[in-house]
Amino acid sequence: MEFKYSDKIRDMKPSAIREIFKSLGTPGAISFAAGNPAPESFPVDALAEISADIFRSSANAALQYSVTEGYPKLRTLVAERLKERFSVGAEFDSAIITSGGQQGIELACKVLCNEGDTVIAENPSFIGALNAFRSLGANIVGVELEDDGISVTALEEALKNNPRAKLLYLIPTFHNPAGITMSLEKRRAVYALARKYDIVIIEDNPYGELRFAGEEVPTIKSMDTDGRVIYCGSFSKILSAGMRVGFLCAHADLVSKIVVAKQVEDVHTNIFFQMICAEYITRYDLDAHIANIRAIYKHKATVMLDALDREMPDCVKFTRPEGGLFLWCTLPDSIDPATFINRAKEALVFVVPGVAFNCDETAGSHSFRLNYSMPSDDEINRGVHILAEIIKDML
Amino acid sequence: MEFKYSDKIRDMKPSAIREIFKSLGTPGAISFAAGNPAPESFPVDALAEISADIFRSSANAALQYSVTEGYPKLRTLVAERLKERFSVGAEFDSAIITSGGQQGIELACKVLCNEGDTVIAENPSFIGALNAFRSLGANIVGVELEDDGISVTALEEALKNNPRAKLLYLIPTFHNPAGITMSLEKRRAVYALARKYDIVIIEDNPYGELRFAGEEVPTIKSMDTDGRVIYCGSFSKILSAGMRVGFLCAHADLVSKIVVAKQVEDVHTNIFFQMICAEYITRYDLDAHIANIRAIYKHKATVMLDALDREMPDCVKFTRPEGGLFLWCTLPDSIDPATFINRAKEALVFVVPGVAFNCDETAGSHSFRLNYSMPSDDEINRGVHILAEIIKDML
Repeated sequence: MEFKYSDKIRDMKPSAIREIFKSLGTPGAISFAAGNPAPESFPVDALAEISADIFRSSANAALQYSVTEGYPKLRTLVAERLKERFSVGAEFDSAIITSGGQQGIELACKVLCNEGDTVIAENPSFIGALNAFRSLGANIVGVELEDDGISVTALEEALKNNPRAKLLYLIPTFHNPAGITMSLEKRRAVYALARKYDIVIIEDNPYGELRFAGEEVPTIKSMDTDGRVIYCGSFSKILSAGMRVGFLCAHADLVSKIVVAKQVEDVHTNIFFQMICAEYITRYDLDAHIANIRAIYKHKATVMLDALDREMPDCVKFTRPEGGLFLWCTLPDSIDPATFINRAKEALVFVVPGVAFNCDETAGSHSFRLNYSMPSDDEINRGVHILAEIIKDML
Repeated sequence: MEFKYSDKIRDMKPSAIREIFKSLGTPGAISFAAGNPAPESFPVDALAEISADIFRSSANAALQYSVTEGYPKLRTLVAERLKERFSVGAEFDSAIITSGGQQGIELACKVLCNEGDTVIAENPSFIGALNAFRSLGANIVGVELEDDGISVTALEEALKNNPRAKLLYLIPTFHNPAGITMSLEKRRAVYALARKYDIVIIEDNPYGELRFAGEEVPTIKSMDTDGRVIYCGSFSKILSAGMRVGFLCAHADLVSKIVVAKQVEDVHTNIFFQMICAEYITRYDLDAHIANIRAIYKHKATVMLDALDREMPDCVKFTRPEGGLFLWCTLPDSIDPATFINRAKEALVFVVPGVAFNCDETAGSHSFRLNYSMPSDDEINRGVHILAEIIKDML
């Protein structure tokens, strides 16, 4: 039979990244495409020990239905950590557990946007968030990203021109895909504009713990005096991505609506792994663990940047991230990006084409995203060499 | 600040059941309110053993991002089991893993319904499903439930009168909350009507494995020759509710859209517990385990029915389920249901008021739902006695 899909879902495509993920099985393939954390970043022995303890001491609670807001002990620990590390969480705020950072983004949009409302985002932006907004029938308006974050003048223009704008979605720290960090001045200016135009901000900060160079910049949420910033975070990049445990901190009024919307999506997040996260934070040294991950990523980012410096012709531009998982390469105008991506794929080097991150799905892009957290040093060196050879051949 | 919520979420209330769940901490409280499986139904030792093995042999895969469709081995095992047990799954169908049965229901609606489209459901129906439809801006039209399932004539009336009807949501087996099972004749008639009016059916079957009396009735999905039935199921009632692992089987075209919608909600379901489910099915005897659960519930249902037969005045009616977790009591017109529910609550006996399950949120109900899977025999006997005393006092 012919199905009549909803308008919002009809033309949606699967995430290019998730789809590339499926074709990585080929032997010899080098993937710079995934957003996977390094396997070395999972504290396997500690998680195994905690898991065995939970089965011994609290199996019934860990396997039974639980409350939608999340495991109370974990909520408290998350709220404390957000306060200490990122000055996130005012009197009026409340923190809940979500099924990955992804669910927090999707729920925030569901709670605030009608079909046809507008979400403003940096362009390019995280495909998972853009697709979440699309899946709820929101229009997306992209605003140019500069070296120090979103263009503030272009943002004000967008706010003026889009009276149905309800949400401003931002990844201010170690931006995905662009790998850049918004300056403190711009964060202040963006928050002031959000107040002026009475819009809610989603501050997506999945990589905030992963700084390996430069100075910490305050979160936008830490400047939030009236409760208009929804902060989304995750354990995916610091404990395990596969367990799907994230968190959200926002004004308690908003959170109460987000909880209702979460309840009908999955009732609650896997409770066993919520307990694992709480026990890990309680019994182990999370900061020391994160320091190890930062050291790993500092090393890997350096290997990739060194390879790019060494191999790439001057006409190829790339960002120099101070943290996170990604950097962003831009080809010269003379190179056709689709041809380049295909030739890379034929040579078994996978990158994500920039078009995947466009707010406007019909626009082109001469950029592509490179991930350095997952491949080995050798894969990074060989992969970058192959990409550079293709580019040189195409010039 | 004042938030401007989306139209679909603005007036939504948290599920009455989830909210009651929070007040169950009171010592001495007897809960007939939750839909929790019996803790004895969790195979704790087996899950602990499998969990330790996964940490030893496949930790990196179990803690890393995975594919949205679900762990391939589990998808295959689920598809095989659905085929064998319920004749579910034709050539054109595909099975995927969801975050509980709940997510499958919500995604089916998201993929097919625009805001303002209509979902037809049995009245009363599962509050989690009704709220999922509401959270997507769908209108809900309730159709009268008779002793052998939905009224077929009233259903045809509803289909005629609601040209924007896109979905028909049904719990044909061990209905929640009503505890009744739809007859084979009605299943055939309902499927024929779905064809005649070109509507998609969601067959929600979370309790299908839990028959403890009477004869198995074929699923509606087993009659599905053109792919218009979306079948939702779950491991919640047979392995663990807290792990949030469910599944969905539907036409592959529909599934491809559902996967796109799932991707933006939670990327994928907790992969560790997907692996646990797959290993449990492979290494242990799931049928023998389910036979144990059925024996537990047969016993508990019998204790509750005996207590109701013994204690309740004749003017109180109740259903006699052949499986599942619930039965449905109806008070005489002379008793004010809200007063009764409050007096029960004061006596620390928690039941879910029938109004919570109404398709029309403004309608009343003289019924309430009783759960027998969670309380002990002693709690069932004491709790039913207390409820009966209150009713007798109110007559």
